[in-house]
Amino acid sequence: MSASFTLSLDAMGGDNAPEIVVKGMELARVRYPHVRFLLFGDEKRIHPLLSGNAATAACCEVRHTDEVVTADAKPSQVLRSGRQTSMWKAIDAVKSGDAAGVVSAGNTGALMAMAKLIMRTLPGIARPAICAMVPTRVGETALLDLGANAQCDARNLVEFAIMGECFARAMLGLDRPSVGLLNIGSEDLKGTDVLRDAAAQLRSAALDMEFHGFVEGDDITKGTVDVVVTDGFTGNIALKTAEGTAKLYTEFLRNAIKSSLLAQFGMLFAKPVISQVMARTDPRRYNGALFVGLNGVVVKSHGGTDPVGFANAIGVAVDMVARDLNRRIGAELDRVAPQSASEPVTPARTAAASE
Amino acid sequence: MSASFTLSLDAMGGDNAPEIVVKGMELARVRYPHVRFLLFGDEKRIHPLLSGNAATAACCEVRHTDEVVTADAKPSQVLRSGRQTSMWKAIDAVKSGDAAGVVSAGNTGALMAMAKLIMRTLPGIARPAICAMVPTRVGETALLDLGANAQCDARNLVEFAIMGECFARAMLGLDRPSVGLLNIGSEDLKGTDVLRDAAAQLRSAALDMEFHGFVEGDDITKGTVDVVVTDGFTGNIALKTAEGTAKLYTEFLRNAIKSSLLAQFGMLFAKPVISQVMARTDPRRYNGALFVGLNGVVVKSHGGTDPVGFANAIGVAVDMVARDLNRRIGAELDRVAPQSASEPVTPARTAAASE
Repeated sequence: MSASFTLSLDAMGGDNAPEIVVKGMELARVRYPHVRFLLFGDEKRIHPLLSGNAATAACCEVRHTDEVVTADAKPSQVLRSGRQTSMWKAIDAVKSGDAAGVVSAGNTGALMAMAKLIMRTLPGIARPAICAMVPTRVGETALLDLGANAQCDARNLVEFAIMGECFARAMLGLDRPSVGLLNIGSEDLKGTDVLRDAAAQLRSAALDMEFHGFVEGDDITKGTVDVVVTDGFTGNIALKTAEGTAKLYTEFLRNAIKSSLLAQFGMLFAKPVISQVMARTDPRRYNGALFVGLNGVVVKSHGGTDPVGFANAIGVAVDMVARDLNRRIGAELDRVAPQSASEPVTPARTAAASE
Repeated sequence: MSASFTLSLDAMGGDNAPEIVVKGMELARVRYPHVRFLLFGDEKRIHPLLSGNAATAACCEVRHTDEVVTADAKPSQVLRSGRQTSMWKAIDAVKSGDAAGVVSAGNTGALMAMAKLIMRTLPGIARPAICAMVPTRVGETALLDLGANAQCDARNLVEFAIMGECFARAMLGLDRPSVGLLNIGSEDLKGTDVLRDAAAQLRSAALDMEFHGFVEGDDITKGTVDVVVTDGFTGNIALKTAEGTAKLYTEFLRNAIKSSLLAQFGMLFAKPVISQVMARTDPRRYNGALFVGLNGVVVKSHGGTDPVGFANAIGVAVDMVARDLNRRIGAELDRVAPQSASEPVTPARTAAASE
């Protein structure tokens, strides 16, 4: 039923590349038989991983690259001298039309910088953002920006809201996802000028958005809205704080149970439902952050994930290609950009938008 | 052994005032027999709560007030017309010397605005901050600012670091608490100019601080440092996101166990250790945020807490008075302020400091 397409994979990105990339591809191949893969990386290391598995070898093509973007490489440095890296070649395959999207578990800053340079941003988008789904008490919520832009102006936040709305439509199948702007209070007067300005724009009738208003940190996991919009500094810290808190609970629970024989006995019975909770909040399940706002699908996998997590990141790319996310974002922006552009522009906004 | 002193309580602040305030005081009275209380509020509502308990009635004095600061009152409004409220009178009792510190579960913005006006900030401190302890995998960490200052300059962050260090010394009994600056990466180049500027100041030899450098969101619960410093916007969102994530886990776990009879049977054995985990992360245990940087001890209790939580907030005030936190902060600032003040001051920094 689904049209077939190709995804390019940066085989050398991440803590345990290329092993987890190839194993993740192997899991994804079964789930998405209509997808083919282009693997960019060191063929001497990739071919042995494929040799034992004819079906996996048959679903992909390996293109050799000699160089790798290291985890500590600076974006400016890879832009100058990274053209022979597996990451660059994998992104470039989307630009050239050989692939419909790219997945990498490598250096986030380098991936974003290269993707911006090679693919360019969508017309009308000043800055791409990083977007991902997070678990909530009632389902899932899209959260962006997760770290691409440490400082944002109101126009950036409005663009993030539109892109997040399109992402939630595609991922959650909602007609009118609700959108909230992250703030330190839900009252209209709270927060910074940038937030109040963004809220005013998001409320405008022309945008026709299901804008809920300001939401607070605990609204993320409450699932108060389908899309939570914030700048990349706050979003990154919120995401990592949530991850840290989840680990704190898991570890406290594990240590407490280990410390008691009686509890260990009890857990024999409780284990199935505990595993169910763990599965529902498993970070691997939410692996795969989308770079929204680019002329192409770019998905970033967590660098330390395992094959299951990497396969899920591939799944995000598959969904975004299949649902034609970028064309949808483009269509939404056509509707709103002229209206927003005619509004008075503050100096700060101009400066940021011209980057 | 401990010298006796008096704390003033805003009996009308919080969701279930004055009941939880009086009941919290009753719990605190047993724990801190050397402390007396001044209760400000509606005597017609407070006296009946005391009538059944001679020992509690004997540890406090009630001073009648007619007015109450509502949860949605604007700070500017209460500064103009709030002088007859229980909150104002409770703070004023510290200024007049009738009490050594004040505890309120009322409106945070109003409490901070009134406390700043009545008590003034400590010499050398541009802006007070809100500071509290949070649970970590290895113990507890002080986190500030939790919401007093949505935007901060480098000098504000340096002052927060010094105050947080003093708070951690007093609360955790550490000689040289380690301090981290919250950022979206631990590399020196990450984040905003303000953060890089603050980091440079915190590294200066003259400050003689155990400065760890930048930390990320997940370092808060890892307990990487004893004090995590950030602006009030980020700190508020980090704290509420952590609270939300904790609730998500608790709720998922509770629902999963409810759904299975086998799990319920198992939990009979595991319950003692699960309760232990819950106790270790109980929000009531961490109730009581200190307003640091004022000429007096002001502790804010969560508005929706119960008597156990309110008693813990009283406990924070007791500790701060007993350990003479403000004199300690004053002494630390005497040491560092001249050095910092002689540094070049950017226009943005001057503007913020002049508020």
